[in-house]
Formats: sequence, structure tokens, C-alpha cells
Amino acid sequence: MSFASNDSATKQSAGIAITAEEIAEQGITASEDVARYALYLGDDALMLGQRLSHWISRAPELEEDIALGNIALDLVGHARFFLTYAGTAWGKTEDDLAYFRDEEEFRSCRLVEQENGDFGQTIARQLIFSYYQHELYSKLVESQDETLAAIAAKALKEVQYHQDHAAQWLLRLGIGTEESHRRIQEGLYYMWPYIDDLFHDDDVTAALPGIAVQPSSLRENFDRRIAEIISEATLELPQVDQAWGGDRSGEFSEARGHILAEMQVLARQFPGATW
Amino acid sequence: MSFASNDSATKQSAGIAITAEEIAEQGITASEDVARYALYLGDDALMLGQRLSHWISRAPELEEDIALGNIALDLVGHARFFLTYAGTAWGKTEDDLAYFRDEEEFRSCRLVEQENGDFGQTIARQLIFSYYQHELYSKLVESQDETLAAIAAKALKEVQYHQDHAAQWLLRLGIGTEESHRRIQEGLYYMWPYIDDLFHDDDVTAALPGIAVQPSSLRENFDRRIAEIISEATLELPQVDQAWGGDRSGEFSEARGHILAEMQVLARQFPGATW
Repeated sequence: MSFASNDSATKQSAGIAITAEEIAEQGITASEDVARYALYLGDDALMLGQRLSHWISRAPELEEDIALGNIALDLVGHARFFLTYAGTAWGKTEDDLAYFRDEEEFRSCRLVEQENGDFGQTIARQLIFSYYQHELYSKLVESQDETLAAIAAKALKEVQYHQDHAAQWLLRLGIGTEESHRRIQEGLYYMWPYIDDLFHDDDVTAALPGIAVQPSSLRENFDRRIAEIISEATLELPQVDQAWGGDRSGEFSEARGHILAEMQVLARQFPGATW
Repeated sequence: MSFASNDSATKQSAGIAITAEEIAEQGITASEDVARYALYLGDDALMLGQRLSHWISRAPELEEDIALGNIALDLVGHARFFLTYAGTAWGKTEDDLAYFRDEEEFRSCRLVEQENGDFGQTIARQLIFSYYQHELYSKLVESQDETLAAIAAKALKEVQYHQDHAAQWLLRLGIGTEESHRRIQEGLYYMWPYIDDLFHDDDVTAALPGIAVQPSSLRENFDRRIAEIISEATLELPQVDQAWGGDRSGEFSEARGHILAEMQVLARQFPGATW
């Protein structure tokens, strides 16, 4: 599998001309409602990016080191767009929002905050999230909010790779050895209780018809597609209860504090400094 | 500074058509001499890539998180090329060489193994190494060994970004605040004793005229260019003794063992498994 392993990570992208800097400088101010929604999208990407980056230098293959590292950086890149845009509503920068919000102010879903665990657990999380995100951005490109639509269009191309990467690994592990089959199946069971969170409509999404994607509208496609790939990988679709709670403004996982502790420590110790 | 921050990390590269897989599959076998030289180049890139990857999720700015992450992944990518090619001499894969050599079998220089320290120390290391590597690859593209030349051509484009990134930060920190000036100056002093190692001709390079770049031949350009940028940044050129030793087959830094411990643990616990 040579997914994304031979790319120049520092090459200029020829994609859609949108950057976090341009969003900040173009003078568009997000409404408070749109900003709250952008936090949902940005925080999910940021948390998962942080989680995945831990595989760099720890993966069992150099190629996979780079693949997961690239996905992590893509996600942090998407987070920058959404947080920059959200910040325009409150006069805050992406860094203000990433480093100077407290635990309970983040709006990420619990799935992305779950432990990496072994490689099977990480791939199970990647599968669920990238399949969800692919459905989400495929609809968000039609948002009446042009900035959200442009971010989604840019991110969608990358999420297609993330999805392919997860699906290829699911097949490889599911059909591989007895041990790899057992571990990816356990990974799916571990992550499954956090799926409902992803498809939960709430007052933030309801306040933005035509602008936000209503999460529940993505469920049918997601369920069908994820069942297909799991079956193809000779794995079973977990039948387990969903975790209690799951409102983005309510319950969050204990893991969130650990992620933030590491991510925020330097910026908080020396605000404004870059050394 | 918007260096490399808006790129798609998973986009296909339109660069030179060479991949680690192609090197492995094209049936070219490196001579033992060439393989020993390729280890020098690959191990330097691998070690620095591992070091830099630790900044991801720990940098004081999201943008810098991504920039250093991209550089880290570029370097691991270069390492894959060189290690794959070296491995053809001994029937080994890149992963065999990365994960199953012992500490004393690596051939990296001491500079790349030094601690990240604060951001100033990391940038000082980046400056020295990227300026050296830029000189090196600029000559290696003319190697009579076509594989080495092709790898150098691909890597050179990325190293140009690494060099610009380091230079821009050197200026920003040197001319910035009193505190940033002090810290980058300390970083330069910390890294300076390991410079001689980079320009040390030995029996490996001497055995490959027209194929290997003789490190000492790079010194004059390096000295001139690094003195210019350091002066431009209002910093002083360190006048310090060089560290004792520095033969790539002899002394190595204590830090090497720590880097390898983290990098190799998973592959060694479960050889051949990917979970």
C-alpha cells in the first residue's frame, strides 16, 4: 500500500485558493451561530489530528509513520480553517481558540478523543470518522455560507484519501491473520458506542438551515456504506449500546483533558512567544 | 509566515517519479560501498525526522505545528528512499534497517540527534542542518549513481523549503524581542560544536569518487552562507570548540538510544505485525 507515502509534504498545493490567513484577512465576520457550528467542525479535526500525530515515530512501518502523519497534518490544517473562521465572530485567532479555551469550552465529539490504543483501534476510529466526515463535507460544499462551503471543498479531497486509507487497512487487517482480524474487530467494538454522537442534531445545527448540515441527515448513507466495507473485510458489525450522553455541549470524555494538557502547555506558559 | 501551512499533506506529488517502492522493485542492487554511504544520508534524515515530529501537537502555534510536522515527514520520506536503496545491497527492507539495527549500527551525525530543547534550539539545529543538506543535495544531483542523483533531486526541492523556514525563523527570533534573541543565540551555541562532523571525509566517501559528495568540499559555501544569515539576523557567529570525535562509525550521542527506543519498540515487540 503506497498511500500518500511519496508526497512532498511541503509542496505548494494547487488546490482551492483558500488559506487560514485569507479567511482571517478577507474581512468576513461569521455570525455567532455560524461560529458555534464552525467550532464543532474545527474541534473534531483538531482533536483527531493531535491524537494521530502520536503515531509519527511510533508506527511499526516507516510508510505508515508518514501516512498517519500526513492525515494528522491534514486534520490540523482543516481545524485551522474552521477555528480561524469561528474566531472572526469573537475577535479571536485560531491560536486563541486552540490554546486558551478550557476543557469544557471545546465542542469535539467523544469519538475523536478516544485513545489510540493499538493500530486496530486507531484504524477503527479512522474508519468511522472518515466515513462520517466524507458524508458531512460532501453536503457542506453546498452550504449557503460560502466560507464553510469553500473549506469543505478543500477538505473533502483530503478526506477522500483518509477514507481510502482506513478502508484499505480495514480490509488488510480483517482478511489478514487471525490476530489482526481479532484486533481490528476489537477496535470496532471499542469505538462503536460513540457513533450516535456524530449524528445528533441540536440547537446549533437547527439554527442554521441551509448553512449547517443536519447531522441526522447523514446517517442513512453512513450506515449503509460502513456496513458494506465491514462485511467486505469479513468482520462483524458491532451490536452494542451507545454511550450515554453525547451532546457536544454536555458530556465529554476524560481523554480531552489529557490531549489539551499536552497541546496547550507551551502556549500557556509563554503566551505570544515562539521559542 | 505562511510557510507550507496550507498544503494538502496527502495530495499526490507531481514531482520526479521515484518512490521507495520503485527503488525496491526496479532490481538495481547498490554496491556495498554505495549502501554504506546511503546509510549516512538516510540515518541523518531519519533521526532528524523523529526529533522534529515531537513538535507536532506541542508547538506554540498551530501553523508551526504543521510546518515542523511537514518538515519531519519530508525527512522521513527521504530516509525511506536512502534506506530502501541501501537495503538492496544486503537483501534488507527499509523497515529492517530502521527498526532492527542496534544503536552502534546507525550512522547518523550527532547534530541531528541533539535534543529539541526550546524552539530556538530546534531552529538553530534546523538552520545548520538544512544549510548543510542544501549544499549536499545540490552536488549529489550530479552523482554518477543515478539512484542517488534521483533521490537528491527529489529531496532538494523540499530542503529548499526547510532552509527558507529556518532562515525566516532565525531572522524573526534574532531581530524579535530581547528574549527571543537571547534564546536563538543560545541555540546556536548549543548546536555549534557538532558542525565539523558534517564535513568529515572518511573511507566511505573516499571510496566513491564521482558518486559520493566529499563532505569537506561543501564547507566553504556553507561557512559563507551561514555567516551571512546569522549576521543578517543580528546574531553572533559562535566561536566554540568542536565536540571531540565525530567519525560516523565511532562516537555517537547518548540521545541516539532514546530516539531508537521509542521508534523501534513496537516493530521489535511484534515484528511483521501492523497493529
